[in-house]
Amino acid sequence: MPMQFATAIRRIRVGNPRRFQIAGCDPSATYGVDKDAAEKMLADAAAQLADLHERLWAQGRWAVLGILQGMDTSGKDGVVKHVMSGVNPQGCEVHSFKAPTAEELDHDFLWRAVCKLPGRGRIGIFNRSYYEDVLIARVHPDMLAHARLPKQVVTPAIWRQRFEDICAFERMLARNGTLVLKFFLHISPQEQRERLLARLKEPAKRWKFSPNDIVERGRWPRYMRAYEDMIRATSHADAPWYVVPADHKPIARLMVARVMVDALSRLNLVFPEVRGKALAELKKVERALRSERAPRRRSR
Amino acid sequence: MPMQFATAIRRIRVGNPRRFQIAGCDPSATYGVDKDAAEKMLADAAAQLADLHERLWAQGRWAVLGILQGMDTSGKDGVVKHVMSGVNPQGCEVHSFKAPTAEELDHDFLWRAVCKLPGRGRIGIFNRSYYEDVLIARVHPDMLAHARLPKQVVTPAIWRQRFEDICAFERMLARNGTLVLKFFLHISPQEQRERLLARLKEPAKRWKFSPNDIVERGRWPRYMRAYEDMIRATSHADAPWYVVPADHKPIARLMVARVMVDALSRLNLVFPEVRGKALAELKKVERALRSERAPRRRSR
Repeated sequence: MPMQFATAIRRIRVGNPRRFQIAGCDPSATYGVDKDAAEKMLADAAAQLADLHERLWAQGRWAVLGILQGMDTSGKDGVVKHVMSGVNPQGCEVHSFKAPTAEELDHDFLWRAVCKLPGRGRIGIFNRSYYEDVLIARVHPDMLAHARLPKQVVTPAIWRQRFEDICAFERMLARNGTLVLKFFLHISPQEQRERLLARLKEPAKRWKFSPNDIVERGRWPRYMRAYEDMIRATSHADAPWYVVPADHKPIARLMVARVMVDALSRLNLVFPEVRGKALAELKKVERALRSERAPRRRSR
Repeated sequence: MPMQFATAIRRIRVGNPRRFQIAGCDPSATYGVDKDAAEKMLADAAAQLADLHERLWAQGRWAVLGILQGMDTSGKDGVVKHVMSGVNPQGCEVHSFKAPTAEELDHDFLWRAVCKLPGRGRIGIFNRSYYEDVLIARVHPDMLAHARLPKQVVTPAIWRQRFEDICAFERMLARNGTLVLKFFLHISPQEQRERLLARLKEPAKRWKFSPNDIVERGRWPRYMRAYEDMIRATSHADAPWYVVPADHKPIARLMVARVMVDALSRLNLVFPEVRGKALAELKKVERALRSERAPRRRSR
């Protein structure tokens, strides 16, 4: 791995959230890694991730929650597909959060995500998440009215309160054995333009296009302010944000995979060891199985 | 309502949690209200609660969560039955939390309760709750091992952390429009003895008896310390504890009902008003319905 890239992996973690500025992050950075190299490195990382996931599953104590946020076309679906495809789907689940249903709106903004949290031994990926409630809901304040909150609780403090509630929630998850990793896939408006044009042109991509994408694109600066505020307020030791340069898809996928591999490696995941009496019992069973007489073949 | 009783309703709210002492609460207090008076007052309160619930349901903005905790035989089931029976079950739900299932243990200690939270317009009653995880789990530390937490997160700080996580969670609920009311049904060990004897003697009550009740009874002082700690650490403005004297069942039921009625009254629940254009539309529809010709009867 090029030195420059190894450093970048550590740098994209928002460790000093108060000083975080989105303008300081280059969405087109490649850190000296070209497309071919990135794809090879991704294959390696994906294999490592599959192996770590096997231990995670066997040990059954930690859960892993990966959260993906980013503007339309930033490559969230592609990250899921290319980073997670090697992982055994028994023990891995992806949830996409769309416009909330009536039942979901009947609860607090964290509720629908909590119901989909991964259990011990599992990796859960949220493709969008409760962070939409401090992003799209902030750019479209009419969404708050839609949420049917009692008017007594809707005050100018609501965004600060949500940030606080999110941090407390993620801290609780960490304390109970969930590793939380949050990725902001950061693209430039120029790159989004190219990707939207591709969606309009290519028949296999057209289904992904919605005229609404263009409307939201017009609100780019407001979204960037909302993202910046969100990252400043909710990046903390228990659940850091990683700002991933996403103009080059192979680079973005590789970075997400590497962050996951590094974080899971630090959990010291080991297969549960069988020792002492339990091991003696296994040996006994093994001997019994070996000395078992082959059953007589039945005549048909 | 006797003056003494009206004062008591305010006093059982733990407003100064740091100084709270369980020994300072008399489980056999009646505040000058005898059984007959209590039952009449309960009937009134239950009717008021049913009326408030109708407005809660129509308005569909607030949710109400009532949490019941207390030693075996403290009367939790009786409170549910006698306080809530008049309330329309469409919009009212009761959840009893028993020993956690494997799926529940695979998540954080709040998770199974979150999945059962009442939605807007609803009253949800938790008969036991996530507070068991700082009560029974504290008296039986082996339950922590059973929860399969990663060893890195199990530290001596775990109880303080859980108290903190509970407070943050309840604050989040309050901010999102859930009124949280918590009741500790406080009985004396003498009264429990009588109730356990009744369970052993009366055929209609025997099914409720478990030999384990006697084992847990032997741990009374440890449970009281756990309750005291819990109430000190988790009574806050967003979700206060009410310590209900529960040696006399009609008094306990009446007190829970009154606290609920008083708290719901403060929400200013009103039926949604139809005004302006929408009202004009209704008037038009009404006229159309009135002038509708009766359909001709078909000949058979």
